[in-house]
Amino acid sequence: MSTTGKQLFTTLEADGTLTVEIEEVTVPEPKGNQVLVKMEAAPINPSDLAILTGAADLENAEYTAGKYVANMPEPFNSGSKARHGQKLPAGNEGAGTVVATGDSDMAKALDGQRVACVPGSAYSQYCLADAAMCLPLGDHSAEDGASAFVNPMTALGFAENAKMDGAKAMVHTAAASNLGQMLVKICQEDGLELVNIVRKAEHVDLLKGLGAKYVVNSSDDDFMDQLRKAIDATDAFYGFDPIGGGKATDNVFKAMEQVAVSKMTEYSRYGSNQQKRMFIYGRLDMGPTILTPSYGFGWTLSGWLLTPFLQQAGMETMMRMRQRVLDNLTTTFASSYKRKVNLEEMLTKDAVLDYRAMKTGEKYLVTPWS
Amino acid sequence: MSTTGKQLFTTLEADGTLTVEIEEVTVPEPKGNQVLVKMEAAPINPSDLAILTGAADLENAEYTAGKYVANMPEPFNSGSKARHGQKLPAGNEGAGTVVATGDSDMAKALDGQRVACVPGSAYSQYCLADAAMCLPLGDHSAEDGASAFVNPMTALGFAENAKMDGAKAMVHTAAASNLGQMLVKICQEDGLELVNIVRKAEHVDLLKGLGAKYVVNSSDDDFMDQLRKAIDATDAFYGFDPIGGGKATDNVFKAMEQVAVSKMTEYSRYGSNQQKRMFIYGRLDMGPTILTPSYGFGWTLSGWLLTPFLQQAGMETMMRMRQRVLDNLTTTFASSYKRKVNLEEMLTKDAVLDYRAMKTGEKYLVTPWS
Repeated sequence: MSTTGKQLFTTLEADGTLTVEIEEVTVPEPKGNQVLVKMEAAPINPSDLAILTGAADLENAEYTAGKYVANMPEPFNSGSKARHGQKLPAGNEGAGTVVATGDSDMAKALDGQRVACVPGSAYSQYCLADAAMCLPLGDHSAEDGASAFVNPMTALGFAENAKMDGAKAMVHTAAASNLGQMLVKICQEDGLELVNIVRKAEHVDLLKGLGAKYVVNSSDDDFMDQLRKAIDATDAFYGFDPIGGGKATDNVFKAMEQVAVSKMTEYSRYGSNQQKRMFIYGRLDMGPTILTPSYGFGWTLSGWLLTPFLQQAGMETMMRMRQRVLDNLTTTFASSYKRKVNLEEMLTKDAVLDYRAMKTGEKYLVTPWS
Repeated sequence: MSTTGKQLFTTLEADGTLTVEIEEVTVPEPKGNQVLVKMEAAPINPSDLAILTGAADLENAEYTAGKYVANMPEPFNSGSKARHGQKLPAGNEGAGTVVATGDSDMAKALDGQRVACVPGSAYSQYCLADAAMCLPLGDHSAEDGASAFVNPMTALGFAENAKMDGAKAMVHTAAASNLGQMLVKICQEDGLELVNIVRKAEHVDLLKGLGAKYVVNSSDDDFMDQLRKAIDATDAFYGFDPIGGGKATDNVFKAMEQVAVSKMTEYSRYGSNQQKRMFIYGRLDMGPTILTPSYGFGWTLSGWLLTPFLQQAGMETMMRMRQRVLDNLTTTFASSYKRKVNLEEMLTKDAVLDYRAMKTGEKYLVTPWS
């Protein structure tokens, strides 16, 4: 038995032509630990945009029914050399109903159930997913479960990583995001102090409304002073940054160092001995990361990705995290959406330009059967 | 008993005025584990220049006998806020003869001996040093021993750190330096593969002459290709960068990722799973560090400093490293000098402009009694 349905593909040619289009495909029969999911809802996350739009010139793209063709400027095109000529599926996560399974016990146990899954091809009507990564949703709707993996597990991953590293407080930039709001609640539940950096006054109110104690606004004139005070109050020398480009991380390192230096009794040309640790987990800004030489040598910056973290954390930790997501799916881990689109609507100019802006609280949900 | 002699001080005022001058000071009697060293030779290392010259405008400074006054431009002046108004000694390391000691057994055992030491005030005729950090030089001259600490222990520290982290190969930028030449020999002795990056054809010859297997020239048109080939041959996904500013580290991360991606069978939007690790241990370029988003999220960059590394490595490792330096002081760990200057000559315009250029093989040695 095989199943036919619509699926989105994205192809970048060596000459910089990015083609994103819907095709009718035949999905093969699930084997072993695979399940075939009839997809009902899939969010468009910033991590999906990397492959869907990247830095392409979408203002001047050519939009036709179920398709757009855009130009990928340099240096992003040659930076994506490894994908040149490859037709790739897209959509990290989503939710739907299992309509067929492979012959493993784990796969068969999911037959007929609504699940959240991480197929990597979620922008499609049918897709194959790994049963081991499926989360049975019980009575929850597909919309409730569509974003059950990426944001919840990432936010929980930050708290788990902080605890592994002995950090009791952390800084989070672009903190008004859906993920950021989850992190506020997780840190409250886990007794971790959290310094939230946002860019707008209304986001200060939003996070304070969730009970956040420390929210600083990078648009305020006294931003660095606010940040130093919050770091001083919390001892947050650890943090996560989804912006990546520009000076978001640099500002945090600077403020951390200034707090540490203010507590030193003697000047050192090498800066403080306070170790400062930041992780970049996204690229809201695709420009280069700028690190100024203004916080000595006691700092470490890493890229952070969910999958390697989960591998490092181990199966037991991952299962505990998943159960926590399921137990709190409509509270701590609830997602909200600005607009629902089907696969064709997803590729129209107004939709593309809107969701690629990645504005806080304006997430899109793809509903492939609507 | 107290001793009087010349000493160099460096003071940065809040308005950006940097004053470096020689004063006659009275050095207090050594106590406890201290020894009083009559300094005979002290090198000017890049790490000394941070406090001695920094980014000051030395072309337009005012030079008088035993003194210069220069302007520190922004943003470097406000970046050095923590030292404003403080009169600081300078000179990390040097060698001389112990002429008085505190009453600890360790200090007394050094009485009358020639030692290498790390007083932090080595640009002086007399200084107090910690006996625990002194290295008795036996029959070696002060010139042989003057640079026995910073470069040798740093180069050895890289090899130790690599071994602790399970790395069997590393990349080194600006590799023709005195320290870089030591690292070539250390890696040969320890069976570590080393990819040397240099900026001039004559430096390729210099390092090849020492037996270096992989030397790539960043001035060549095919630099990135040379670098990828060397990383591919050695599996060097680990490295040290003394340049700091600009794209020195970025280029290495890029080449590492390109080598890792070339071995992948399937494209991943997140890049390779190969963990890439770099350390910045100097600031030959005082501009910001630029990290482009072109090597996924599997990378970690840290500042690296000798003292915290030695603390982390422990006393036993440090003693083993020191013994190795002493055993090979005139071979693996030999330093050479372009010019010897006394304290007054050290502050003349031609000397200052020359040593602050930090050219490979053009190190200065301060001989305070000449």
